[in-house]
Amino acid sequence: MIARVTARFPATENVLLGPGDDAAVVRAADGRVVATTDLLVEGRHFRRDWSSARDVGHKAAAQNLADIAAMGAYPTALLVGFAAPADLPTAWADEFSVGLRDECAAAGAAVVGGDVVSSDTLTIAITALGDLRGAAPVRRDGARPGDLVAVTGNLGLAAAGLALLHAGQAEGHPDCLTAHRRPAPPYPAGPEAARLGATAMIDISDGLLQDLGHIAAASGVGIAVRSADLHPPAGLVEAVETLIRGGNAVRSPLDYMLAGGEDHALAATFPPRTSLPRQWTVIGTVVDGDGVTVDGAIPKLSGWDHFRRTPDNSDRS
Amino acid sequence: MIARVTARFPATENVLLGPGDDAAVVRAADGRVVATTDLLVEGRHFRRDWSSARDVGHKAAAQNLADIAAMGAYPTALLVGFAAPADLPTAWADEFSVGLRDECAAAGAAVVGGDVVSSDTLTIAITALGDLRGAAPVRRDGARPGDLVAVTGNLGLAAAGLALLHAGQAEGHPDCLTAHRRPAPPYPAGPEAARLGATAMIDISDGLLQDLGHIAAASGVGIAVRSADLHPPAGLVEAVETLIRGGNAVRSPLDYMLAGGEDHALAATFPPRTSLPRQWTVIGTVVDGDGVTVDGAIPKLSGWDHFRRTPDNSDRS
Repeated sequence: MIARVTARFPATENVLLGPGDDAAVVRAADGRVVATTDLLVEGRHFRRDWSSARDVGHKAAAQNLADIAAMGAYPTALLVGFAAPADLPTAWADEFSVGLRDECAAAGAAVVGGDVVSSDTLTIAITALGDLRGAAPVRRDGARPGDLVAVTGNLGLAAAGLALLHAGQAEGHPDCLTAHRRPAPPYPAGPEAARLGATAMIDISDGLLQDLGHIAAASGVGIAVRSADLHPPAGLVEAVETLIRGGNAVRSPLDYMLAGGEDHALAATFPPRTSLPRQWTVIGTVVDGDGVTVDGAIPKLSGWDHFRRTPDNSDRS
Repeated sequence: MIARVTARFPATENVLLGPGDDAAVVRAADGRVVATTDLLVEGRHFRRDWSSARDVGHKAAAQNLADIAAMGAYPTALLVGFAAPADLPTAWADEFSVGLRDECAAAGAAVVGGDVVSSDTLTIAITALGDLRGAAPVRRDGARPGDLVAVTGNLGLAAAGLALLHAGQAEGHPDCLTAHRRPAPPYPAGPEAARLGATAMIDISDGLLQDLGHIAAASGVGIAVRSADLHPPAGLVEAVETLIRGGNAVRSPLDYMLAGGEDHALAATFPPRTSLPRQWTVIGTVVDGDGVTVDGAIPKLSGWDHFRRTPDNSDRS
C-alpha cells in the first residue's frame, strides 16, 4: 500500500529525500523547521458516512498545515501515520491519499513519509513541517493593549455543516457541508500576517472565542470583540434558518461564528493603525485585563461545547 | 494532561520554541531536517501487561530515534500524538511521558509538541526529527559489490524476549526482556558510520535478513552473510535453552539473530578495507546479484514471521 500511495505524492524542491528510506530529508533553508502533529480518530474527528475518504485526507492535512501557517510559516512537508482495520477497503486508503496529496499541493507542501499499521480503530496521525523563510515565528504571546484583532477565513460554517449533518438536514447547504468536510485554511495569510508585523496569531480550530482566549492568556491581555464587525455569510444564515425550522438549533449565526470550530481560519493581532489587506477583517481590539469580551460582556460559553466539533477530547500543545 | 506532561520535557539548544503554541520551532542548522514517523498500537506493538508505561515510552521514542540515526543524523526533536481510552489511568500517561523524555535525553533530543485525543484504542504516534550536521544522508541504495557489511547493537535479544513472554518463561532472562521492552539503539553509531564513509545503512526493525534485503534491493546488489561472524550473546543462548526446555522453540540463537526484529541495531555497508571501530562487527560482504544469502545459501524465511515481533502489519516508508 505504501508503494502505491507514495507514487501519488509528487516531490517539491523542498524534498531532498522522499518516502522509502528510514527517514526523509526536507529542506529547512533558514536553519529552522516548524513542526506540528495532530491525530484524527474515526467517530471522534470524522465519520465515514459523513465524509468521503478524500474529504478526510483533505481535512487531516489542512488542520496540520493551518498550524504551520499560524506560525507565519510556509508548509513544506507532511508525514502520515495510518492505522486501519484489516477490512478497510483499499479504495478508501487510496482516495484518502489523493485528498492528502491535493491539500498538500494547495499549501505548497509534499508528503515525504509515513507508516501504515493495523488497528481496530481507524486513526490518522499527521505531522506537518514548515519554513519561516527568515521571519520570526508569530507566537500566541505577543499581543499588546491597543493592537488590532483581525481574522481571515471562514467562521462558523464548519460547525453549522456538522450541525446540519447531525440533524439530517444537510441537503441544500453546500457551503457549510464543504467547510466541515474540507476546511480551506487561508495558508498564504499566515506568512502575510508575519510580514505585516502580526504580534500574535493562532489557527482557529476550537472556535474564535476560545482561540482568542489562548492569545489573551498567553499574552497577559484582554481581547474586546465587536459583534457588529462579524458579518455572517449567506450560507451560514440559511443553514441556521434550516436548523431552526427543523427545531434543531436555537443558536444564531453569530453564535456559530464566535464558537464554531474547525474552520481553520486565522486570527491575529497587529500593531495599532496597521493597514491590513482586504482579506483581513478587523473584529476587535486588544485591551488591558484578561479574557475575551463580546460587545463589552463576557460571553456565555456553557453548553456550546457540543456544537463546536465532532465529539472529541482534543487537547493540543 | 498536556501541561503536566510537557513540564517534564526539558528543552535543548535545538528547541527554539517548545510545546504550547500552534507548532514548535526546531533548529535545523545545516538547512535540512531529517524526519520520520511511526505508529504503535496497543495489542499489536505493545501489551500493557508485558511492558510498563515507562517501557512503552522508551520504546516508542527509540524506534523513531533509531530511524534518524540510521540516516547518519543526530536526533533533535520528537513530537508525540497520544490517543487513549477515557479510562486509561493518569499514572500510565505520566509514566509513559517519563520514558519518552528519558529516551530522548539518551539520544540528545527533546519533546517539542504533541496532541492528546480520546480513542477506544490506545495508539501512540511519534515523529522524530534530526540534524545531519552537514553530512550527506546515508541511504539504503548506495551499497556496492565488494563493500563490507557490518552491524552494531543487539541482534535477536528483543525477539527472544517476546518469545519468552509469549511462553510464560520470562523469569530469569533480564537481557532479553529489557531488549524487548526498552530497545537500546546505538544512536552515536549512525553519524559515526556516515563519517566512516558508509555507503548504505538501515535500522534493523524487521530482522537482520529482511532489512539487509531492503539494502540489497534498493542498491541492486546481493549481500552474503557469514554466520560464523554472528556471535550469539550468552543471554540469547540461555533464553533459547529455556524456550527449548519448555517445548516452546525449535529455533537456534542464530535464527533469532538473523530474523528477530525490534532490537533497532544498525546495519551498514562500508567501502572495502574501511577500518571500523570495535563496536562494529563485520558479518559479510556485498556481492553482485540480488537478495541475501547466509553461508552461500538462501535462508528459509517462511514461518519466521511470527517470532519477529508482536502481531503487526507494519509497512513503513
